[in-house]
Amino acid sequence: MLKSDYGTQNCSIARALELVGERWTLLVLREAFLGVRRFDAMQAKLGVARNVLSARLDRLVREGILDKVPYSERPLRHEYRLADKGLDLWPVIVELLLWGDRYAAPNGPPIVIRHKGCGGELGDRRTCARCGAQLTARDVRAEPGPGLVAAGGW
Amino acid sequence: MLKSDYGTQNCSIARALELVGERWTLLVLREAFLGVRRFDAMQAKLGVARNVLSARLDRLVREGILDKVPYSERPLRHEYRLADKGLDLWPVIVELLLWGDRYAAPNGPPIVIRHKGCGGELGDRRTCARCGAQLTARDVRAEPGPGLVAAGGW
Repeated sequence: MLKSDYGTQNCSIARALELVGERWTLLVLREAFLGVRRFDAMQAKLGVARNVLSARLDRLVREGILDKVPYSERPLRHEYRLADKGLDLWPVIVELLLWGDRYAAPNGPPIVIRHKGCGGELGDRRTCARCGAQLTARDVRAEPGPGLVAAGGW
Repeated sequence: MLKSDYGTQNCSIARALELVGERWTLLVLREAFLGVRRFDAMQAKLGVARNVLSARLDRLVREGILDKVPYSERPLRHEYRLADKGLDLWPVIVELLLWGDRYAAPNGPPIVIRHKGCGGELGDRRTCARCGAQLTARDVRAEPGPGLVAAGGW
């Protein structure tokens, strides 16, 4: 079938979705940005089937978005770290987060992203709402926000 | 199964994906941002099955992301326009586009987004790379870029 697949479309959005648009993939990357690097921890936080998580991680490693790095020799264990290609997805994640905060967070943002430097909140266009600095993934930390309820995971 | 669905996660990213993370939905919104408003035109551009497109559009209308507006009385015909909640997804679309341009456009960007005011390209943090203006969806136009090949659709 003609153009039944994103990948056949000559569009950078379609090609980006081909790489990160699979179900769960952006949530796996969210975990990576929150500092969760190990399979079991991701699996526990996401509640996704292990075979699905495994497939998503393998794809992200194959695409150069995550690096699979050993953290223990005996037994051999790996963790997943954001490669540059993955770090560059931070703006996508941030914009989804801010839109969700605006339209799908009736109790307020579940998490708040703050500039490590001055403690200001992440604002529009990834600048610090307090000091105006242009922020990157490495400049911020995530904190529980007003919408976080005890039962929820983040 | 616990947390098998995005929607049960107390996270604005998960909730945003619950609304716009279905396959094809972001490409439907891309079409809306490019000014494609009618079912048949979207269907022709996306090459997606009509029942899938119909389901995606209905969902977007139900969620208040698109408005379904009559443009003809006899016969009664509707088109789909971005509501404010949809226009606010522009940053997500833009960041996916820029990431795709960087990592998944070997022949250069298939489309280029330009500031209507000065003709400069859309740059980092949704500012105009030429004049520095902070841009919104209404301030830009899309043009064919170097990566657009005759056979592709955009």
